[in-house]
Parts: sequence; structure tokens; C-alpha cells
Amino acid sequence: MKAVQVVGYGDHPLDNIRMAEVPAPEVSGPHDVIVRIGGAGVCRTDLHILEGQWAEKSGVRLPYTIGHENAGWVHAVGSAVTSVAAGDKVIVHPLMTCGLCRACRAGDDVHCEQSSFPGIDTAGGYAEYLRTSARSVVRLDDSLEPADVAALADAGLTAYHAAAKAARRLRPGDRCVVIGAGGLGHIGIQVLKALATAELVVVDRNPEAVKLSRAIGADQGVVADGDHVEEVLELTGGHGAEVVVDFVGEGGATRDGVRMLRRAGDYHVVGYGENIDVPTIDVISSEINFIGNLVGSYTDLCELMVLAAQGRVRLHTATYPLDRFQDALADLDAGRVRGRAVLVP
Amino acid sequence: MKAVQVVGYGDHPLDNIRMAEVPAPEVSGPHDVIVRIGGAGVCRTDLHILEGQWAEKSGVRLPYTIGHENAGWVHAVGSAVTSVAAGDKVIVHPLMTCGLCRACRAGDDVHCEQSSFPGIDTAGGYAEYLRTSARSVVRLDDSLEPADVAALADAGLTAYHAAAKAARRLRPGDRCVVIGAGGLGHIGIQVLKALATAELVVVDRNPEAVKLSRAIGADQGVVADGDHVEEVLELTGGHGAEVVVDFVGEGGATRDGVRMLRRAGDYHVVGYGENIDVPTIDVISSEINFIGNLVGSYTDLCELMVLAAQGRVRLHTATYPLDRFQDALADLDAGRVRGRAVLVP
Amino acid sequence: MKAVQVVGYGDHPLDNIRMAEVPAPEVSGPHDVIVRIGGAGVCRTDLHILEGQWAEKSGVRLPYTIGHENAGWVHAVGSAVTSVAAGDKVIVHPLMTCGLCRACRAGDDVHCEQSSFPGIDTAGGYAEYLRTSARSVVRLDDSLEPADVAALADAGLTAYHAAAKAARRLRPGDRCVVIGAGGLGHIGIQVLKALATAELVVVDRNPEAVKLSRAIGADQGVVADGDHVEEVLELTGGHGAEVVVDFVGEGGATRDGVRMLRRAGDYHVVGYGENIDVPTIDVISSEINFIGNLVGSYTDLCELMVLAAQGRVRLHTATYPLDRFQDALADLDAGRVRGRAVLVP
Amino acid sequence: MKAVQVVGYGDHPLDNIRMAEVPAPEVSGPHDVIVRIGGAGVCRTDLHILEGQWAEKSGVRLPYTIGHENAGWVHAVGSAVTSVAAGDKVIVHPLMTCGLCRACRAGDDVHCEQSSFPGIDTAGGYAEYLRTSARSVVRLDDSLEPADVAALADAGLTAYHAAAKAARRLRPGDRCVVIGAGGLGHIGIQVLKALATAELVVVDRNPEAVKLSRAIGADQGVVADGDHVEEVLELTGGHGAEVVVDFVGEGGATRDGVRMLRRAGDYHVVGYGENIDVPTIDVISSEINFIGNLVGSYTDLCELMVLAAQGRVRLHTATYPLDRFQDALADLDAGRVRGRAVLVP
Repeated sequence: MKAVQVVGYGDHPLDNIRMAEVPAPEVSGPHDVIVRIGGAGVCRTDLHILEGQWAEKSGVRLPYTIGHENAGWVHAVGSAVTSVAAGDKVIVHPLMTCGLCRACRAGDDVHCEQSSFPGIDTAGGYAEYLRTSARSVVRLDDSLEPADVAALADAGLTAYHAAAKAARRLRPGDRCVVIGAGGLGHIGIQVLKALATAELVVVDRNPEAVKLSRAIGADQGVVADGDHVEEVLELTGGHGAEVVVDFVGEGGATRDGVRMLRRAGDYHVVGYGENIDVPTIDVISSEINFIGNLVGSYTDLCELMVLAAQGRVRLHTATYPLDRFQDALADLDAGRVRGRAVLVP
Repeated sequence: MKAVQVVGYGDHPLDNIRMAEVPAPEVSGPHDVIVRIGGAGVCRTDLHILEGQWAEKSGVRLPYTIGHENAGWVHAVGSAVTSVAAGDKVIVHPLMTCGLCRACRAGDDVHCEQSSFPGIDTAGGYAEYLRTSARSVVRLDDSLEPADVAALADAGLTAYHAAAKAARRLRPGDRCVVIGAGGLGHIGIQVLKALATAELVVVDRNPEAVKLSRAIGADQGVVADGDHVEEVLELTGGHGAEVVVDFVGEGGATRDGVRMLRRAGDYHVVGYGENIDVPTIDVISSEINFIGNLVGSYTDLCELMVLAAQGRVRLHTATYPLDRFQDALADLDAGRVRGRAVLVP
Repeated sequence: MKAVQVVGYGDHPLDNIRMAEVPAPEVSGPHDVIVRIGGAGVCRTDLHILEGQWAEKSGVRLPYTIGHENAGWVHAVGSAVTSVAAGDKVIVHPLMTCGLCRACRAGDDVHCEQSSFPGIDTAGGYAEYLRTSARSVVRLDDSLEPADVAALADAGLTAYHAAAKAARRLRPGDRCVVIGAGGLGHIGIQVLKALATAELVVVDRNPEAVKLSRAIGADQGVVADGDHVEEVLELTGGHGAEVVVDFVGEGGATRDGVRMLRRAGDYHVVGYGENIDVPTIDVISSEINFIGNLVGSYTDLCELMVLAAQGRVRLHTATYPLDRFQDALADLDAGRVRGRAVLVP
Repeated sequence: MKAVQVVGYGDHPLDNIRMAEVPAPEVSGPHDVIVRIGGAGVCRTDLHILEGQWAEKSGVRLPYTIGHENAGWVHAVGSAVTSVAAGDKVIVHPLMTCGLCRACRAGDDVHCEQSSFPGIDTAGGYAEYLRTSARSVVRLDDSLEPADVAALADAGLTAYHAAAKAARRLRPGDRCVVIGAGGLGHIGIQVLKALATAELVVVDRNPEAVKLSRAIGADQGVVADGDHVEEVLELTGGHGAEVVVDFVGEGGATRDGVRMLRRAGDYHVVGYGENIDVPTIDVISSEINFIGNLVGSYTDLCELMVLAAQGRVRLHTATYPLDRFQDALADLDAGRVRGRAVLVP
């Protein structure tokens, strides 16, 4: 089959990736599921992989097939698989998890003690077929198409996870600040609108992104132009918000974001890059919390697909034939993609 | 009445404090409660006040009476007070709260929007009588004496609040690391043993404190001598603990403590001094949380008094007559107090 | 002032109530708040009072002024009241609570150990003025008028409390059955739509009520005509719903409702009349819960007023001048009121 | 191998069971685990099975091997099993669950949509070997022996599940009533003492059982002799307990138990037999909850084994060689077993 593979690392990402003809994956274990790819999201992480940022951490052997945001149709299943059958439309959770460790047994599969990550440390979905596990496929509602939701499989799932966790403490009358209305923030805003009645204040450096956030449900939009902390405080009665969800995590976002947080508030860390650097006396005297957020669980992905089927979460996508993966990556790198790029068969 | 008052600030704390004769407080508002002091805890914060560290923050006018860890007997009550009567034995919550703001109405009175803090910003309990509110007095079990529990009113309450919050997520088989077995840690360990079955690993620089912690319930003790992070990891199966409660918060405690934390773990900040300085990528990739902890609520104080009456939380105290306040402060400053110093009538 | 008073009990409610001239209430305690009534909801409970159903339970001495769903403007306040001032627009929580007992201190004021209930056991709001407490008044948003929200003060608050509690466990993809689309159910449906994304199935005997419920957000409507249990099971994949909220509680509703409940589901009891009569073996083998629901707390009322100000909860009301209280009660008794009747000055 | 099998149903249980020679189970699926039995609990349910009470419900084909409380050593594992290895000491969760349905993925495996129940609907553990799944075996601490813990696998696990759920809302100062100090209650009391600081009041008809409950941690014991409701109310300040855990569920226990419950209290249903029959007006006016409890999850069993290894939960057992199964069942039927009977190889 055709598969897009990483063949090296370096500063010019597009030099390190090429189309190859490789054997299609086959069922080898009882819980294997082979998915015929209907859409593979093109993610900024893919560029980072090609630059070599993940080389040491993943320990993957080159060449290998990238692509960690996948959806498609079940093509074949292992002997023990009863939950899906050939032909089913599915989205693929980015992790393959063991199902037996303490975390998995508690429903917290993201913290599985022996997971693998197709597209990062094993063969991914920039290809015609992908091997995953029965534990990783979520059946799609008839109304959803693989190519339309593939890009929700990782980035969208992370945003869902953080937004849903944040929403659990929000009550009517609370305020929630979202920092960053880009890819993840865009999903996070829609999820927060679906799951909470809190007043939503969105902060972004880009006036266009702020404007767009208002169109998808933000109650207030603030352009991060230097006065944004004061603006947010003014919009939140001078006290700050009960919850801040930070999809940026760099360029001073955390320093500003903490100032927007009310006493006893929760600061959700989703984006990353800089350090949280805050005096312990501030943490205790205002009794604030910093809450880490990784990708969502299998259950989170099921819930996100419910919101997608209900039309509460929508994603703008630009599709490219698999053969044009270079164009997709180049467009992403150059900032020419509106919404998310998705490779299709 | 006799009252010990702050008359100035400076590097020599004992020069700035003196006994005075002042009018005894009287009932002026409907919810006032006048407490005849039976014990007033002598706290390191009192030394900090005398050094001037709180001058700006509290804005209190000199001279004023210090002492924020108080217990005694109800002497008189305002017209609207029905919950206690003259003669009742009580401990005094350190805050006077409004009862009407959103936080108070939700039971979260520590975040009251208009609280005052006797002994910090208004007259405290190094005196014969104290004025507080019906909202701040907790009746004591017959088995408890004011002088024995007074020192639990602030430091002990903070330790209880953090330990009880931490205990809520601990399940059998979990591990909990306590950093710091000093004043607060000593109470925290006892509370954790009462409220959780988790294995308790206590870390302190002082071998004597580690030894003592074993005597009051710690399952493992580790002396912080340079290898302590590795020792804790070994004691926690290589993964770290589900919960770390840090009663130190300075001298590198947070840097070490975060390394002792398991994926998806909670880091409770109680002690303070240094900054939390941690890469956001570590926060998200291990999905850890930093949980701030301030003093406990009124309900927390009620619960702590239940544990004290059950004998599950004990405090070693050294009593000094009120007239000998200089000796008590000097002994505290010089590290000569074992447990807590308490002024008695 | 003018006040509508109960003067006796009996089968002909309208014979036992009359307009009287009584002294207007005055501030007598430090936390008193005198409200000039802007709207007083006319509730079925008022008819029950006049029939004598509450006589023994309330122990109230006749004559007294009824009316327990009140809103208006603050007219005067006691010396200790700082949270509202004369002229403020407010809705009145139906209970006056002590603020000092264990339940009050935990934010659970509905279970106050010494509450009173104006309109039931002391003078209520079918009058020009009402005396309540600073603990019972919630300031209204500028966009809301007392007469429009008065009827939310008790019935609406009960519906909010149950729906908000039910919503806390509902996740995307869950189903929730609402039994009864009358007065409380009407509010409950709106609250559930605001706070949860669960699919909402509404069951009522009245086809018109079912139709109306669809208009305010129900995803499915089922007329209770004998096949309704089977219909609901079909609509919920054969397994039943994760949550049933029963606003009826009589006429066989609980027997039918339990059959609509999925394993591990929550059955919220709000309406009352009949007995829950269910084999313990069914309770344990399907591990279901029955959750009682009383009126909401002060915090619940604040939250409901937020939803009202956001336009998420609306109530149809028919206003009557206070002098025409007989007409309002007669129309209610005869089923001629659409939505809720409200007495206005 | 030797296996004790049900060969018919009827009023004389011991006529319907006999030792047989059957093929030992072998690994057939990738997740199979074959356990060499070290102990098989003899449970009252086994008598009920022989009487035919479960015949219709289970649909099992005769003859089949009974025994649903099993522990032993791993004998062989399927190709996909990595969590245990031959020789491991294990206790066996009573259910075999799919791991893929929504309930399983949320950690709530007891509500698995396609579980089986060895000893009830497929071959159980009154035998030399048992086939179960990798999802159902919990490794034992070195300090525990299979025969000592086998009887915790079902009855003990149910008691743990209910007690641990009840403990989650108990705070210091709360009261908890346990109805029934028999097999399950005995475990439940120990779990409640380990997980909560609430005052524990145990009620049983048998004075000896009450006495024993005091020895294992009950703070108060009440003999159910007619005045027990009043006695409990007196012991709980006249208000009743925040939580009642009812391990009886028949003979009027629920009627009495509800009267012992405080406003806003939780009534945990564990034992069964009679109906809960309570007016909805009582449910709502006191806002109480009835909480169903089935057997515990896999995670619950892991936690229970932690408490057992810590010595916090102990069980008195009487062992019988497998060949003497008739004696064990006869002794159980005649009330001659103190604690639990366990068959050993």
C-alpha cells in the first residue's frame, strides 16, 4: 500500500518525508483492528517530528509512517473483536492501551502503563491502512464522515478533555477565560459553550481569531495587545474568572493568565512552551490550582463524537489527496491552512 | 484588661511589643461574641508581624493587640446569638466572615469578600478577652481544654484543610508523600492517618522529626539529605506518589517534590517561600496538578475538633502565663519550644 | 397595609381567605429586610393551605398572610444588612435560615435546623410588604422584573435544584427522561437543556404539554397513554435512561418511571403523592438510586436567576391585581391559568 | 480433574450436587487465565442455586460446576496475557467482563453489557482448576493466602463496594448506622472503620453479633429488639444518621432503617428481600436518597486486597477439603459455620 514515511530528521521538514510502497498491515493479534483510512489530520506535531524534536523521546526506528489523527472504515478485525465489524465507520483514539493496568481499569486509559502511539512511535495513518486495537476505535454516527472528524482525534480530543474537565466546576454566573482561539481553542470554546453556562471571555493576539471566537459562542472577546489583563479583570467584575483555560502556554500567557484568575480559581494548562513560574505565597494566599491536561481518554473521544454528531462541535477542514502530503505540510508550515488540513485517499 | 500590644516594627521583635491596660471589648453588634481567653497560640507569624512583614498588607493601626490562635470561654453574646451562650468552651476560627457573600453562602467562608482577621488586622487574643462573631466560634467537646487546642486554630487548621482535601482522592493502595514534619506537617500526618489508608512517606531534613513522624503514624520516613528523591521513588515503586503534600515550599522543596509525584498526581502547596517553577510541558505530559491551600473553613475547624476529641490529633504544647509573653516569643525565636507555645491567663 | 389572609380551613378554599388591613411589617432585627412586593406567585400549595392540609404541620395561628413566592423591591433594612439597600430589585428565597447551624455553614441552607417559611408558618407575600432576612434576598439583574420571576421563587427553584443535581452526572451521549411537563417540569426541561447535553425525552399524559415541551427543547416527546414505557425504552436503545427526573410522583408515575431507568441510573423524586414501592432485589441487581429533591438553596436561587437573566429559563405568567386574589385562586383551581398566576400591586 | 457439579434442582440441596471427573479447563482464548484453585468460598447463594432459585435467571445447562468465590495460583495464560504469569497468587473477580463496552471503559465493569459469572452461569471454582480472564485476576500480596481471602471475592467485595461508597460522603462528626452484623456486615464494619472517622452504630437482632461488632470497631451496638429505632435516634442526637448501610433488607429492616436516617441522608441498600415502600412525600420533604449496591468492580477488589494485606480487613474461615463439600454445605445450611466455609484442595 501507499504510505508517507519519515526517512530522516532536520531543519527542512519536507526533505525528510516521502511516499513509499509498504506492506499493508494485517491482523496479527486477537484485538487488532485494521482501519482503511478515510482521513488523516495534518498536525503541527508532524512538522516537529520531521525536525527531530520527538526522535529521542519516541525512540522510533526510521523509516516509519507518520499520522496520528485518523478516521476511516474498519477493514478487518482480530478473532476477539466483537465491538466493531468490517465496514463500520470509526475514528481512532491516538493511543493503543493495555486495558489491564490500574489506570486503564479505572477508565483513565491515557495514563496506561504500556501504551503505544501510532504515528509517533509506531506506524501511523498517512497511509491507506492503519493497524490499531479494538480498544481504540469509536464508531461514528451516520451523520459524520471520517475526513470531517479525523482532525478531532488528537488536537480536538485534547481540547475536549480540558474543556470538559474545566466545565465540571463551572456553575451559572461563573466566568471562564479561554486563552488562545487557534486550533485547540476553537474546539475548546465550542465544548465549553455546550457543557457550561459560564460567561466565556476569549483572549487572543489575533483580532481575526477573537472575532471568529465571538461567532462560535464567546460572550466576550479581548485582543491581547498589552492591556488585556486589565480588560479581562474589568469584564469579570474586578475579581478575575473562576476558571482560565490556557491553550497557549508560551510567550507570557501563563504570567498574564494567572492575573486573570479569581481566588480559589482553576488554571487549566493545555498549551505548553514556557514555565509556570509563580510564588508559592501567591498560590496559597489566593488558593488557586494549576490543572494539567493531556489528551482525552477513550470515553472523552466518545463524548466528543456525540457533540460532533449533534452539530455542537464543528471543524473547518481543507482536504488534500494523500499524494499531495507535501502541499499539505507546506501549507501548514506557511500558515496557509484555515482550520485543519486532512489527507484523504 | 491586660493585653499584649504591638507598638512598632523592627528587627528586634521583642522591643516592639508590650503589656498594656486597655478597655475590655464589649458587645456592640448583634452577632458579637466576647470570649474570655483560655489559651492563645504563639505563632511564628507573630514574630513576622513584629518585624513589620505584615504592616503594609494588614494596614493595621498601632498599637493593637496580637494573637490569632485563640480558645476560651464565651463571656457575653450579642442579641442575635443563639448558637452559643455564656460559659461555653470554644475555639475561635481565625477569620470573621460576612455570611452573605457568594463564597460564604457556598460554605467556602475562607474566601469571604469582606473578612477581618483578629490578631492581624484587628484586636487579637494575647489578652484577657477577645471580640469575635457567632460565625467564628466552635463549641468544644467536654474532653478538650482551650489551652490544649488553641494552637490548632490557625496552623493546625491549615494543615487539616490541606490533608483533608488531599485525602479525598486517596484510595487504598495509593501513596502520599508529606514534605516537612514540623508544626504543620505534624498535624497533617495525623489527619492523613485518620482520613486515608494510603501509605504515608514523610520527608524532612531533620532526622529527629522523621523519627517522630514514624511514631505518629508515618509508614516510611526519609531524611532529606540529597538522595531523598531517589529514596522516595524507590519506596513508591519507581513511579512516585499519587499525592504530595508540601508543608515546606522553600529551599528546593517544590523542585524535589515534583519529582516524587506520579503521573496524574496532585501536588498540594501549603508551605511557601520559593516559586513553583516548572515547565508547562511537564505539567501537561504527566498531567499533574498543583493545588493551593489556605487556612481551613469553619466546617474544617469543626471537623478538626472532632478528630481532637477522638484523640486522633494531638499537639504538644508548652504553656506560659500571659505576663511571660516575652519569654514565649524569645523561646520560639530561639527554637527552644517543643510543639507549640501557648499563653494562658 | 393590605394583606390577603387565611381565616379558616375547609373544603371551599375561597371561603377561608379575605383581604384585611394589617400593620405593615417593620424592621425589628439587625438582619431584617422589608420587601415591597412586586409579584407574589399563586401556587397550588396555597389552595392546599386553605383546605387545611398544612394546618397541623405548620402550626400557624390564624389569621395570617399567605404567599410564599415573592419578589419586589427592598423597602428597608436592619442595622447589620450590607448586602442589599433600599430600592434594590430582589427575589425572595422561600426559607428564612439561621446561617449558623452545620447545614447552613456547609452551604446546604435548605436543611437549616431552625428555618421558618413565610407564607406557610409566618406572614407571607400576598400583601404590600413582606419581612424577610438578608440571607433570603437575591438581587435581580436589571433585565428582570419582580412580577416576571416571582413564581420561580419556590416551584421554579425546586425544579432548578433537581434538574441541576441531575445534570451533574449527565455526560454527552446520556439520556434523561423527564416525567411531567407541567409547572415544575416546564422549568426543569429548560434547566436541563441549559446545563446538560443529554438527549431529553419528555413524558406527559397531556399531548399539548408534550408538544410544548418539544418547543422549549425536549429532543423527544412521549404521550403517557399506556405504551409509554415501551416507547421510552425504544427511544433509549432498549436499556433505559441514565437519569429519570420525576416531577409527578403519583398516579403510577414511579412504577413506570423505574422501568425507564438504565442500570446504575438515578431516579430523581420531585413530585409526590404515591409511595415508591420497589423490591430491594431490583434496587441492588440494577444498582439504581432514588434521589430526593426538596426546594433549592440560596445558591441555587442565585444560579436560577442567572439563567433567567440569560433568557435560558422563561416562565409564562398571568398577572392579577392583589385585590383580585379570589379570581386568581379560582382560575388556578379550575385549571384556567396557563403558566403561573402572579398577584401584583 | 475433580469438580463439584450441580446435577438438578430441588428442596433438598445436597441431593442435587455431586463430585465428578471432568476435563480440566484449557486456554482457548488469548486473554484466558487458568487458575489452580487454592480456596473456594461456600456461599449461601450456592444453596439457593441448588434449590433452583437461579435456574431461570442464569439459564445455565446442567450439569455444571458451581463456586463463585475463588482464589488460587495462575496455572496457564493465553497468548495476550502480560499482567500475570504462571505461579502468581491471585484472587478472582466474580465477573468476566468485556473491557470494551461503555461501562467497562469508564471503570464501571460491574455494569458490563456482556459479562459472564463463573459458578452461576458457567463453570465455577468448586474444582481443581478454573478458567477466567486476565481482566478478572488480582495479584495477592505475599502476606495473603488464597484460602484466607477466597471468601472475600464476592460477599466481601459487595460489602467493600457499599462501605467504600458510603464512606466517600462521611466527614468527621458524622454518624453511620450499619444494619446487620453478619457475613457482609462484618466486612462492611471493618471497611467503614478503615475509610471513615464517622461514629459507627451497629444494629443486629443477635446480641452476640452486636458484641462481636464492638470488638472489630463499632462505636455503639444496638440489639434490634423493638426499641432499636428509638435507641439509634438517641445515640444520634435525635436527628438520625447521615448514612445508613443496610446489609439486611428484609424483615422490616428498611422500614426501621429509614426512620434512623437524618435529613439529606443516604440509605445504602445492600441486603435484599423485602420492598422499599416509602411515601414520596417523605423522600422529598427530608430529601433522602436510596443508593443501590451491587458487587464491587475490579478496582474495588484491588482496594479490598490492599486492606486485607494491611490487616484492616480480616475474615474468620473454616476450611474443608474439596471432597468434603457436602459437609461444608450442610454446616452452612444448619448455621454451624462461624465466619465463612472455604473448600481447599
